[in-house]
Amino acid sequence: MATDPLPIAQALIRCPSVTPADAGALDVVQRLLEPLGFGCERLVFGPDDYRVDNLFARRGSGGPHFCYCGHTDVVPPGDLAAWSDDPFAAVVRDGVLYGRGACDMKGGVAAFIAGLTDYLAAKPDHRGSISLLITGDEEARSVDGTARVLEWMQQNGQIPDMALVGEPTSRRVLGDTIKIGRRGSLTAWVNVHGKQGHSAYPAGADNPIHRLVAALAPLLAAPLDNGSEFFPPTTLQVTGLDVGNTTSNVIPAAARAMINIRFNDLHSSAALTERLHAALKAAGCRYEMRTECSGESFVTQPGPFVDGLSRAITRATGEVPKLDTGGGTSDARFIARYCPVAEFGAVGETPHQVNERASVEELRRLADAYRMILEEALG
Amino acid sequence: MATDPLPIAQALIRCPSVTPADAGALDVVQRLLEPLGFGCERLVFGPDDYRVDNLFARRGSGGPHFCYCGHTDVVPPGDLAAWSDDPFAAVVRDGVLYGRGACDMKGGVAAFIAGLTDYLAAKPDHRGSISLLITGDEEARSVDGTARVLEWMQQNGQIPDMALVGEPTSRRVLGDTIKIGRRGSLTAWVNVHGKQGHSAYPAGADNPIHRLVAALAPLLAAPLDNGSEFFPPTTLQVTGLDVGNTTSNVIPAAARAMINIRFNDLHSSAALTERLHAALKAAGCRYEMRTECSGESFVTQPGPFVDGLSRAITRATGEVPKLDTGGGTSDARFIARYCPVAEFGAVGETPHQVNERASVEELRRLADAYRMILEEALG
Ligand SMILES: [Zn+2]
Ligand SMILES: [Zn+2]
Repeated sequence: MATDPLPIAQALIRCPSVTPADAGALDVVQRLLEPLGFGCERLVFGPDDYRVDNLFARRGSGGPHFCYCGHTDVVPPGDLAAWSDDPFAAVVRDGVLYGRGACDMKGGVAAFIAGLTDYLAAKPDHRGSISLLITGDEEARSVDGTARVLEWMQQNGQIPDMALVGEPTSRRVLGDTIKIGRRGSLTAWVNVHGKQGHSAYPAGADNPIHRLVAALAPLLAAPLDNGSEFFPPTTLQVTGLDVGNTTSNVIPAAARAMINIRFNDLHSSAALTERLHAALKAAGCRYEMRTECSGESFVTQPGPFVDGLSRAITRATGEVPKLDTGGGTSDARFIARYCPVAEFGAVGETPHQVNERASVEELRRLADAYRMILEEALG
Repeated sequence: MATDPLPIAQALIRCPSVTPADAGALDVVQRLLEPLGFGCERLVFGPDDYRVDNLFARRGSGGPHFCYCGHTDVVPPGDLAAWSDDPFAAVVRDGVLYGRGACDMKGGVAAFIAGLTDYLAAKPDHRGSISLLITGDEEARSVDGTARVLEWMQQNGQIPDMALVGEPTSRRVLGDTIKIGRRGSLTAWVNVHGKQGHSAYPAGADNPIHRLVAALAPLLAAPLDNGSEFFPPTTLQVTGLDVGNTTSNVIPAAARAMINIRFNDLHSSAALTERLHAALKAAGCRYEMRTECSGESFVTQPGPFVDGLSRAITRATGEVPKLDTGGGTSDARFIARYCPVAEFGAVGETPHQVNERASVEELRRLADAYRMILEEALG
């Protein structure tokens, strides 16, 4: 009989691990993995006032090395009065599990542990090795979590051959979507300097607003691309534009803009930064620009790993998963620097919401799918 | 022997008529005009807390009717410690008259009264009639001064055939410049509405910054005209652009712009307002726009009036005046709605400044020029 993910999910939800607190959640995971033969490392990172607990667990040492990645931290419950139940009580009603993290993503972690347990029971001598990277720093800063653990893994020869992030990727029904990549995100803050003056005598001034408009207009006039095989077109949004001048006949001395670009695999943040510089220079701007890239775009091209995932998911759910790259950023952006990575999990209907919930039946099918994914990956 | 404008200017400066206070300045004028045969009307306008005194004086009732326009209010002296003398003492030193209003424009009013006195002494039976419109509300709000007096004049059949504003128009030497027009000034405040959203999913949002940039870019790409016979090209300056969004991944709900246009006689404020509407609509903006026109452009085309002015000025000063339309706005913008108007006065070196001053010798030559202008206009 299959291992039930429900009690595992309930045990996890009952730890109020509001990011970056752990509240015992990683202990729950570790106590389940050790009896299965996993060697566990607790990796605590971060400054004194923001300590983050992480777990790296591995069983076996050979290749291929399959790594499951997830997080046990959750966002705050918000307005408690709006919840039907205590968000950390893990109440089950009419086949639905309620609680903060039920969907994002304690339910997913529980399903993987359940599927893993059954896989090992059936295939104790599988080839290769299996690891879990479970972080407590995904929902807020994402600085001392997956990114730091991966550094530690590289230093310790633990980089996997393939990784599966268990975030809730399914859209309508379990299995309809795998994420094989994500867009990158680049933010730029620009400050254009002009020369203040009177609007009646513009020849003696240099209007920084006019320069900024001249720089932005061509960037906005046409899409930066038309999309690629797995990605929609790159989007550029000017999200801020401020001068702070209230005197209508004064040409201001400076103008600031804020730009956010969500880019596909046809671009890198460095090339886009150059493109912004070129547009500003073409408009004759004197300016400073600061940029921040919260993640490069990445895509794991279809091949044996993604094919195996798809086959397993179809076997478990009857769905032929769509290979998708939509949505915001996830920790997969960090993993993609080291190895092929894809994301598959439950239907993401209620993450971060009041009365967050997951279907118990779906968690059980997800556990089944994870078991079959391990079979495809490691035989 | 010619009437000396100096004691008249001193009597005016010694009235501390800081706008909108009159402080006896119009009484000084009226007491000089009545003995010359002028009928004087004092016209008090404005709300209880901002009463403005104005003087309309006329001698004769036939045509042509020549009107001299000026103001006796002055801007505040500012930092008294920075002045070499009491700004209301009207000290003369080394042939220079010091005091608030010496240049802008009590010296000018005094010069006109002196020139007028001599003209009437020589030509008591000149054809036509002469009037003076002297306001106490030019330097601040310009609401209850010249504009209101002109309404009164129209209601009372007193609109002149030609008007001369005595503001200091000369640049380097007395007589080098007449102003025959002024640019108009139109200010527009635009609020563009979009639809807020997440920068990762712009399809569900409508970025008001993008719409605003698309509306402004073509307006800024090329000059609105190349200037006309007496005017430089119209200028359009975007002096404000604000959103107030600090979250880089949020597409804001609205964006505001402030635009100031200084326009020549090829445009009207109504046509320019339509042009702004057209640009906003072409960019698909949903918006509100508020506009304020502080004066239409106007020009008094060269003809008998301007030719006569030029001849008189050349006779008095040896200069051939340039017909100019530069600078900001003056009360001439109100007069231009009713009759041909030009502006001629002293060298405007120190208006509104500390140690405001006028050359006594220049005031005397200005009085002479005004006398000759009356000869040209009325024989
Ligand atoms: Zn998550
Ligand atoms: Zn003035």
